[in-house]
Amino acid sequence: MKADNLKVAKGLFISGVLTLCACASSEKSETMSLKEQGSFAVGGSVITTDGTYDPQARGPEGQTLHGDHAYVFYQKPVNARKYPLVMWHGIGQFSKTWGTTPDGREGFQNLFLRKGYSVYLIDQPRRGNAGKGTVAGEYVPLTDEQNWFNIFRVGKWPDYFPDVQFPSDRASLNQYFRQMTPNIGPIDINVNVDAVEALFEEIGDAVLVTHSHSGGMGWQAALQSEKIEAIVSYEPGSGFIFPTGEAPAPKPSSAGPLVAVEVPMGQFKRLTEIPIVIYYGDNIPEQPDDNPGQDGWRVRLEMAYEWADVVNKYGGDATVIHLPSVGIYGNTHFPFSDLNNREIAERMSTWLDSKSLNIR
Amino acid sequence: MKADNLKVAKGLFISGVLTLCACASSEKSETMSLKEQGSFAVGGSVITTDGTYDPQARGPEGQTLHGDHAYVFYQKPVNARKYPLVMWHGIGQFSKTWGTTPDGREGFQNLFLRKGYSVYLIDQPRRGNAGKGTVAGEYVPLTDEQNWFNIFRVGKWPDYFPDVQFPSDRASLNQYFRQMTPNIGPIDINVNVDAVEALFEEIGDAVLVTHSHSGGMGWQAALQSEKIEAIVSYEPGSGFIFPTGEAPAPKPSSAGPLVAVEVPMGQFKRLTEIPIVIYYGDNIPEQPDDNPGQDGWRVRLEMAYEWADVVNKYGGDATVIHLPSVGIYGNTHFPFSDLNNREIAERMSTWLDSKSLNIR
Repeated sequence: MKADNLKVAKGLFISGVLTLCACASSEKSETMSLKEQGSFAVGGSVITTDGTYDPQARGPEGQTLHGDHAYVFYQKPVNARKYPLVMWHGIGQFSKTWGTTPDGREGFQNLFLRKGYSVYLIDQPRRGNAGKGTVAGEYVPLTDEQNWFNIFRVGKWPDYFPDVQFPSDRASLNQYFRQMTPNIGPIDINVNVDAVEALFEEIGDAVLVTHSHSGGMGWQAALQSEKIEAIVSYEPGSGFIFPTGEAPAPKPSSAGPLVAVEVPMGQFKRLTEIPIVIYYGDNIPEQPDDNPGQDGWRVRLEMAYEWADVVNKYGGDATVIHLPSVGIYGNTHFPFSDLNNREIAERMSTWLDSKSLNIR
Repeated sequence: MKADNLKVAKGLFISGVLTLCACASSEKSETMSLKEQGSFAVGGSVITTDGTYDPQARGPEGQTLHGDHAYVFYQKPVNARKYPLVMWHGIGQFSKTWGTTPDGREGFQNLFLRKGYSVYLIDQPRRGNAGKGTVAGEYVPLTDEQNWFNIFRVGKWPDYFPDVQFPSDRASLNQYFRQMTPNIGPIDINVNVDAVEALFEEIGDAVLVTHSHSGGMGWQAALQSEKIEAIVSYEPGSGFIFPTGEAPAPKPSSAGPLVAVEVPMGQFKRLTEIPIVIYYGDNIPEQPDDNPGQDGWRVRLEMAYEWADVVNKYGGDATVIHLPSVGIYGNTHFPFSDLNNREIAERMSTWLDSKSLNIR
């Protein structure tokens, strides 16, 4: 029933997963006590085709499509802290970002449940389990994983960076590549931000945790929702929001220019009302580099510092932490699932404590 | 930043979800103690574009795509029973099938975790969180939800069946329609079955729980995997497997003909080696009906009975339970999330007990 080459491939992946489970057994031994867990769709819109529904003909006339919602899986530990953590994935990713790491260890979902936080994991509209969009799209199975290996700063393919905080075995890389999933239809930032706004409207005050592409959308979400109490952002990408007239010039890099966003001061001020912390990992060049996988992060880190300065100039509380500058080395674009992710979680936890976001 | 009509729509959905959470609070009060939870990809294949990877040009040459895996989220309760339950969604659906019900109550995921079973939820290849396929596809946002309302036997749109076990409020229907998600690329039954076989190879002996479209694929999976210890199938659709020469003629219905599958007796006998139970809900007509939404199930129920007879003739242990025949009325195509899903879970639990599948 199966092609032989697929059989061979399957054998490889099966043994990979077995390895994965073995190395993770020790840290999973402590019981997690949940008060509640569940899932729901939130936000989105409805499209309707004109006409009258005919149950025999079964054509589109008079029928609806509900789409462009976010999908959310949440868990509340017993005696949860007051503010849930809402975790939002980045480009090409989905809620898995915060789940089991490529080498089978616990990700931020479990680590912060264990720390007493309720955790909400988002699949943004048109991605993963929120795949039902309102706009047509085409899926092309593009071979592009070596680009992502570079952009995510695991190394310069086929080499891993020396001492990178990423497992070097083949099974982990297999899991890592499979934790990407395509967008279904175009990425629409307003649709995504609106769904996340609706989520905060639903659950109330909470802390937003973003990564990469959701970094920029996270700033926009904070402009729209008063219920975002704080933002923790891992390696935010494009979309830094400045007051009109204060954005830096586009920053050229070998990955393309990084362009800031401007909004009226009245909107920008919202970003000065909440504590914000940004983390970037290692292997970000200090000088222009012809490897676009790395160079794009050079200009993002540079703009992050400038952005925090402007936020703080207007009374805000934004901190940028370049992890090597505090003695934490080797992190990729995914610090929360890297080999040292417990240390990364401790830093975030300590920051939440320092802002009194850990209250029960 | 947003169109006004979207704001209106959002307001509706937000209030819907609030209702949803209120009605579910009482039954979520008991703590769930988990020994472990996590996620992984399993199965699948890899495609590679010829050529040499160039990190500056970033073209597809020399790059890979890992796709066609299943995505699995699993939870193990403390002191789990020996056999996990592996839950596989149906057509147009994903793992959400087994999660929170449209009206915010606990689904089979939570109910069986509470009963002491480890639960593995599948997103089959090219669906939901396993969206990364190896084959191109097109997404067309087709308005078709009234068809599904009928096919899933909630009612005959716009009317609900009298006393149907489905909530009649608008917010629940909103959640219900949003728990569908498109396939990304073509549905490939062999790809799906191979990934599920790989999952059982990974986790070992377990019970497979199928629904609708995964019903037929589930029989095929049992032919391929010795590790499937039993099958519980809710409203299996196409794909009943008979020994060569013993399949019934195609059964015409107003939804189209139902065609059986034939395999050599040597393969078929595998289905006689494991206990199997099949459940169908209510509002399935006894005579041909011009509503295709209902009539397709008439011939499926009919073939299920004939199939169980053949399985049992060769020494098998297959039972078909048409729920109204045992005094349980009003169930839709989704008994496990219907208003009486606790009663449905109890029946499945009792069946597992009766086959000694509940051992620790």
